[in-house]
Amino acid sequence: MKAELICVGTELLLGDIINTNAAFVAKNLAALGIDHIFEAVVGDNKERLLSQLEISKQRADIIILSGGLGPTQDDLTKETVAEHLKKQLIYDEATYKHIEEYFNKINRPIVDSSKKQAYIIEGSNVLKNEWGTAPGLICEVENKTYILLPGPPIELEPMFKKYVFPYLKQKSNTVLVSKTLKIMGIGEAKAEQMVKDLVNGQNPTLAPYAKDGEVHFRITAKAEDEDKARKLIEPVYNKLKEIFGINIYAEDEKTLEEVVAELLVKNNLKIAVAESCTGGLVASKLVNYPGISNVLIEGVVTYSNESKKRRLNVSDETLKQHGAVSYQTAIEMAEGVAKTSGADIGISTTGIAGPGGGTPKKPVGLVYLGVYIKGYKTYKELKLMGDRQRIRERSSKELLDFLRRELLTSNNKL
Amino acid sequence: MKAELICVGTELLLGDIINTNAAFVAKNLAALGIDHIFEAVVGDNKERLLSQLEISKQRADIIILSGGLGPTQDDLTKETVAEHLKKQLIYDEATYKHIEEYFNKINRPIVDSSKKQAYIIEGSNVLKNEWGTAPGLICEVENKTYILLPGPPIELEPMFKKYVFPYLKQKSNTVLVSKTLKIMGIGEAKAEQMVKDLVNGQNPTLAPYAKDGEVHFRITAKAEDEDKARKLIEPVYNKLKEIFGINIYAEDEKTLEEVVAELLVKNNLKIAVAESCTGGLVASKLVNYPGISNVLIEGVVTYSNESKKRRLNVSDETLKQHGAVSYQTAIEMAEGVAKTSGADIGISTTGIAGPGGGTPKKPVGLVYLGVYIKGYKTYKELKLMGDRQRIRERSSKELLDFLRRELLTSNNKL
Repeated sequence: MKAELICVGTELLLGDIINTNAAFVAKNLAALGIDHIFEAVVGDNKERLLSQLEISKQRADIIILSGGLGPTQDDLTKETVAEHLKKQLIYDEATYKHIEEYFNKINRPIVDSSKKQAYIIEGSNVLKNEWGTAPGLICEVENKTYILLPGPPIELEPMFKKYVFPYLKQKSNTVLVSKTLKIMGIGEAKAEQMVKDLVNGQNPTLAPYAKDGEVHFRITAKAEDEDKARKLIEPVYNKLKEIFGINIYAEDEKTLEEVVAELLVKNNLKIAVAESCTGGLVASKLVNYPGISNVLIEGVVTYSNESKKRRLNVSDETLKQHGAVSYQTAIEMAEGVAKTSGADIGISTTGIAGPGGGTPKKPVGLVYLGVYIKGYKTYKELKLMGDRQRIRERSSKELLDFLRRELLTSNNKL
Repeated sequence: MKAELICVGTELLLGDIINTNAAFVAKNLAALGIDHIFEAVVGDNKERLLSQLEISKQRADIIILSGGLGPTQDDLTKETVAEHLKKQLIYDEATYKHIEEYFNKINRPIVDSSKKQAYIIEGSNVLKNEWGTAPGLICEVENKTYILLPGPPIELEPMFKKYVFPYLKQKSNTVLVSKTLKIMGIGEAKAEQMVKDLVNGQNPTLAPYAKDGEVHFRITAKAEDEDKARKLIEPVYNKLKEIFGINIYAEDEKTLEEVVAELLVKNNLKIAVAESCTGGLVASKLVNYPGISNVLIEGVVTYSNESKKRRLNVSDETLKQHGAVSYQTAIEMAEGVAKTSGADIGISTTGIAGPGGGTPKKPVGLVYLGVYIKGYKTYKELKLMGDRQRIRERSSKELLDFLRRELLTSNNKL
């Protein structure tokens, strides 16, 4: 079974928004074992959408459309699909009632233009939108399935999960199972060379891809059921575990912050974070983990020297002799935040994120990470490339990975 | 002049990565006044890419391809475009030398597979890749232009800016100028109703679009030169300013954090941030602004009651009587962080981001924001929907917008 996604919206072609719907739908099709062969973005333009529908119809069994279901004049997905299918739009009283209720709930008066949203393609199934006003639609016509979904991700995502996923699951008779291993500390080309004997497989396949400072390997197997697919994956998975060892920081959906947070919670280690150049990013990543409140005592963003001294007891001498961006300061920050907050562990960042502030000796991208674990102290020096945001993002990740490795390799620290 | 973008990569169709290149290229085409009529995503599959190239060739003058230029076996964009154009791939010594230098610079040995990247399509112009190894290519064949760019955004973006933008600028003879007004505090349907007399224009056009808690209005004019386009935009712009007033928080690329940071810097107001549920996100947003170090004294993530008391002097009585999630605590946090750090302004968040921790009286999504400005104290209550991440993200934005309004409306606070 083959699926195509058509995202409708001039704002996408103008680059005003990033197309996160495409990745979301794609991920779900992959999980369903449905071949996702193509994706298109068209503007709010009837003729171009009609022509894309003609092309997609030749190639795919399932055509998913996102966007263009809103109340405004340039929203024309529903009207255009109806024309493509030679169907009428009919007024649906139940949908109108639902829109009315929605406006009541959010305490806003219903607007005239909302009436347009109560029209549906004749013969289609309505997917109730509990997260907004535009209903989703599923139309089955001549062995083809058309699925129309609202554009805003906060409506599309829950609607897909609740209605579309179970609907498609019934239709699909193979499963595609994937396992992803996420690696830090090894470059893409080298990582691929390390596994070059494994990349020629057809089932499972092994695909590497590089992200900022990371390499992910995805093993994918196709089979009748999940169990059989998992059995195909296993030997490749074991081999990768052997090859990359501690450099694998997580699997699948798991994030670096989750892995670190779980290590802390499992070992009941209280942590405090002191950030300079990352300005709260590290703490904010840890707080993504719902259970973190048990171990995260506090975070401090000490941007000024003054604040490093007052909040963290970094010594005046260290700051004068080595500067705020030095491994000495990083270590004192980590130790200071742990001791002043009563945590077992303190971690810290200090660096030059740019664009200004660099010198030949301490250029933009120089960052020091400090780790303090119950009296044990260590640091790491980074030399990063990129803009301010990238340097800060990367530093945050590197600090969490640094702590992860320290926690895993030195039992005596725990 | 019409352009299409073809993004190549199975990882996109599997949903492993979000297609930020599409938005980046689209934004630049819009700025160049080049009609961006279509966008496609194809997997690493020669036949499908060939067929897409045939379709795109019928519609567009400029075909931009991103991705599939890497050293690995499934990278086949260059090979496929060469086949489509009936051209040979030829080995380019200068490109190989450049790849060698790149590996030297990052202190890694060159790998065999890199040799593949030194082949170029005959007759094309090579765009030197200073940010990675895959060269970009521009091929002009029979009035069509093919532009091949590497997939990683950290290579594509600077290469586009340095080489592709100036190249396309020469080709284009109209400009498209846009002006975006960003609004918080008014829903999409209502905002559109407020401007319904303005949305029918052809040049300039006015397009609304909704983002999480925001509405953006984009005015776009087409003209021979930038000056003429700006003159077309002006009356609509003035009208929108009149209609939305203080609800407009920023224009164009400017972010909320930039606006707030600039207000602080301009008025030389020192700020400190105390965060509970947002866990460092607010501080981290402010730190996005490079000049913030002059006014951001510090940030504190006080997740536990203990830490709220110790670091911020929140009173035990307040916590016992009203709970950590209360407007009373929010105000004391804001005041506490300002006073203990010596800042003029303290701002705070405390709330229930979920998934756990909600009660009927204090459900998930209940968040209090506190603002303290030189003795003046105020708060705001939010009732948000969505998951943990969305509640935290939205709370951070709402706090910055709340502070912005307070700073703008009450001169006596400054």
